[in-house]
Amino acid sequence: MRMVDIIIDKRNGKELSKQEIDFFIEGYTKGTIPDYQASALLMAIYFNGMTQKETAWLTQAMVDSGEQIDLSAISGHKVDKHSTGGVGDKITFITGPLVASVGVPVAKMSGRGLGHTGGTIDKLDSIQGFNSSLTKNVFTDNVNKFKLAVAGQTGNLAPADKKLYALRDVTGTIDSIPLIAGSIMSKKLASGADSIVLDVKTGSGAFMKTIEKSEALARSMVDIGNALGRQTIAVISDMNQPLGYEIGNANEIKEAIAVLNGKHIPDLRRLALELAAHMTVLAEVYPTYENAYLELEKNLDNGKAFHAFRTFVEAQGGNTDRIDDVTQLPSAPHHIEVKAEETGYVSDVDAELIGVAAMYLGAGRATKEDEISHGVGITLQKKYGDKVDRGDVVAILHSNTDKATDSLEKVKAAYRYSTSKPDKRAFIHKVMK
Amino acid sequence: MRMVDIIIDKRNGKELSKQEIDFFIEGYTKGTIPDYQASALLMAIYFNGMTQKETAWLTQAMVDSGEQIDLSAISGHKVDKHSTGGVGDKITFITGPLVASVGVPVAKMSGRGLGHTGGTIDKLDSIQGFNSSLTKNVFTDNVNKFKLAVAGQTGNLAPADKKLYALRDVTGTIDSIPLIAGSIMSKKLASGADSIVLDVKTGSGAFMKTIEKSEALARSMVDIGNALGRQTIAVISDMNQPLGYEIGNANEIKEAIAVLNGKHIPDLRRLALELAAHMTVLAEVYPTYENAYLELEKNLDNGKAFHAFRTFVEAQGGNTDRIDDVTQLPSAPHHIEVKAEETGYVSDVDAELIGVAAMYLGAGRATKEDEISHGVGITLQKKYGDKVDRGDVVAILHSNTDKATDSLEKVKAAYRYSTSKPDKRAFIHKVMK
Repeated sequence: MRMVDIIIDKRNGKELSKQEIDFFIEGYTKGTIPDYQASALLMAIYFNGMTQKETAWLTQAMVDSGEQIDLSAISGHKVDKHSTGGVGDKITFITGPLVASVGVPVAKMSGRGLGHTGGTIDKLDSIQGFNSSLTKNVFTDNVNKFKLAVAGQTGNLAPADKKLYALRDVTGTIDSIPLIAGSIMSKKLASGADSIVLDVKTGSGAFMKTIEKSEALARSMVDIGNALGRQTIAVISDMNQPLGYEIGNANEIKEAIAVLNGKHIPDLRRLALELAAHMTVLAEVYPTYENAYLELEKNLDNGKAFHAFRTFVEAQGGNTDRIDDVTQLPSAPHHIEVKAEETGYVSDVDAELIGVAAMYLGAGRATKEDEISHGVGITLQKKYGDKVDRGDVVAILHSNTDKATDSLEKVKAAYRYSTSKPDKRAFIHKVMK
Repeated sequence: MRMVDIIIDKRNGKELSKQEIDFFIEGYTKGTIPDYQASALLMAIYFNGMTQKETAWLTQAMVDSGEQIDLSAISGHKVDKHSTGGVGDKITFITGPLVASVGVPVAKMSGRGLGHTGGTIDKLDSIQGFNSSLTKNVFTDNVNKFKLAVAGQTGNLAPADKKLYALRDVTGTIDSIPLIAGSIMSKKLASGADSIVLDVKTGSGAFMKTIEKSEALARSMVDIGNALGRQTIAVISDMNQPLGYEIGNANEIKEAIAVLNGKHIPDLRRLALELAAHMTVLAEVYPTYENAYLELEKNLDNGKAFHAFRTFVEAQGGNTDRIDDVTQLPSAPHHIEVKAEETGYVSDVDAELIGVAAMYLGAGRATKEDEISHGVGITLQKKYGDKVDRGDVVAILHSNTDKATDSLEKVKAAYRYSTSKPDKRAFIHKVMK
């Protein structure tokens, strides 16, 4: 088998065989296939796509390129949740405890963030004392005892994906549905869960800007999961504006705690319940989605979900005073108001611009070396469809300096206005299995 | 400027600027742009093509990447001829002397061959004593004195093309019209001629198998030449069967000498005159193509073309006894007959298979290290449209061994037969300027 023939076949639109894909991934991981052949193949895939079979084989080959986490020491049906990433996304801190509160084990491996805001671990680091460096045994024990643990990602999961992703980043081959789907799913599959619920974001603040592309990505990922023996469901949800009202590390923990305590923040509560319902049905705790949704809602209102969160934080060394009284979480010294420049209705709160503004404040990292500031962030006062008068405060920046001109400009640009009330927008677009 | 943005622009179908193309070629030649980014761009070019502007800029950048031969010490209008390569192609040995015989200087740089049969220099090496390693001064002097010299290619012409070609070969990106056109033209332009006549082959034995692709390649090359200030003409000629009747190094020299001495071998005489006519019109020796053709024909019949060849061979140390009496040229000891397996008409003499058969006999190189055998080759007795009876000899192999099974099989497979006389085929398809 020669790599150049594999490239030419793909270039000519032929479906590659499992053997050819294995040859490529094994050779590329070992370094016997050079970057310049891999990048030519990736560009051919960009243009000609991959069939569902090819995509599943590619994903399996990337899973097989490294370690696979063995969750068999954890009893029960393990369901993982994965978000394709958005601004203000604190769903994990709500859905995780909620699912744990009905006895479904959640063994979550997470990374630190690069980009708009911090990652799951960065956000949890807002809670004084919280420790995500768990040994395998402590991690397993905690999930068995408390049904929820979050650990920083360790081990050599899907190294082929890691190497390919770095290559794609510098060769203009990121934006390919089968490659994105394979990349995400290879890490999820290597993480060892029995079933997977995917939260696929769509809109200006998402990686996929259109419904069509988001659906295509969701379809591809669901098909990969199912083809490789893990039941997989995808929920496509709106990311044209940030989720909830809070952006920033401590800010987001605060808002998640409010929802865990029964506060009705519509989009957050809705999406957390939606994902948790699918997860618990997959785990066979409830017979139907409708049943699951109703039962889970109770645990947001009766304190059980918050209790699960508190127990998990305590088990990982977090100071529970900080979550019992969220005013003790880190906060920034300066509050800068952003005011409406027109009278009318909010017709857009561009999620991407808000994310960039938060990063400028110090909530996220532009490069791996950047330090995160846990107390900074943005609180939205007005969202899509809200009525405003000129001069009304639409958002507040939580800043370490009294001037945050760059962020302010971005937030101002994120808000757009219309004279008539804009149409209601769908929030959950579709569920795919 | 970042290479990844150039790749993404091309991937998205945008026309690259001259600055972007220069950045790529300069960086790639120097090694500051890595192979893996170059190959991704090449694959994007494979899919999205290049505009004529881009192709001309690419070619110019490749010319500028290395030395350019200065032919200014040669008086007169220098016209170069280039063939895209075919089987039995000994046109240079006819057209070169023919053009020289009417006073047009031909300063030919040539390479050794890789593939079916030898290159121009390999073929000339059949003549005992012939020396193609000329110093720049001797080369220039010879052209000024005798109007014709052939030297092995020296110097660092278009190193960017050399490096890119090697990369294209292993990344499935050879087969792209703008890249092929740019590659050929960069070397021609760096070779310093004032005008260029291209012999673009089409058919089973050519790189371009269809008329459409050959025309597209010719169009691209002509446009590049004209855009970069060299008058360029392309002649598209048939390469479904070999040119003439002889294949192999000494064999081809022999047949060229026959044509130079006035023998009417239709396709060879026609094509040599066609190309020479365009060359001499470009050199402003004759006012029109028709006029040039008639005048040049005389020099094939009156011995002047052969005389120019003889003078050139002598000037480069070749033993003229060998060309005055071609039976003194190298010949192989064994003659193996290939017989018609059917009665009817020859409907195909597949040029590619004949070329491969000749290579198996030792006339060409499969790898750079292979030694060429000058006396081996194939003599066709029957060509397209000829009537044959079962058992008639259709071709003779000139072989160093008494069995040449692999070659024999290939030649047998090259000949196909039909019961009715096949339609006459066009030989010169088109002239493009």
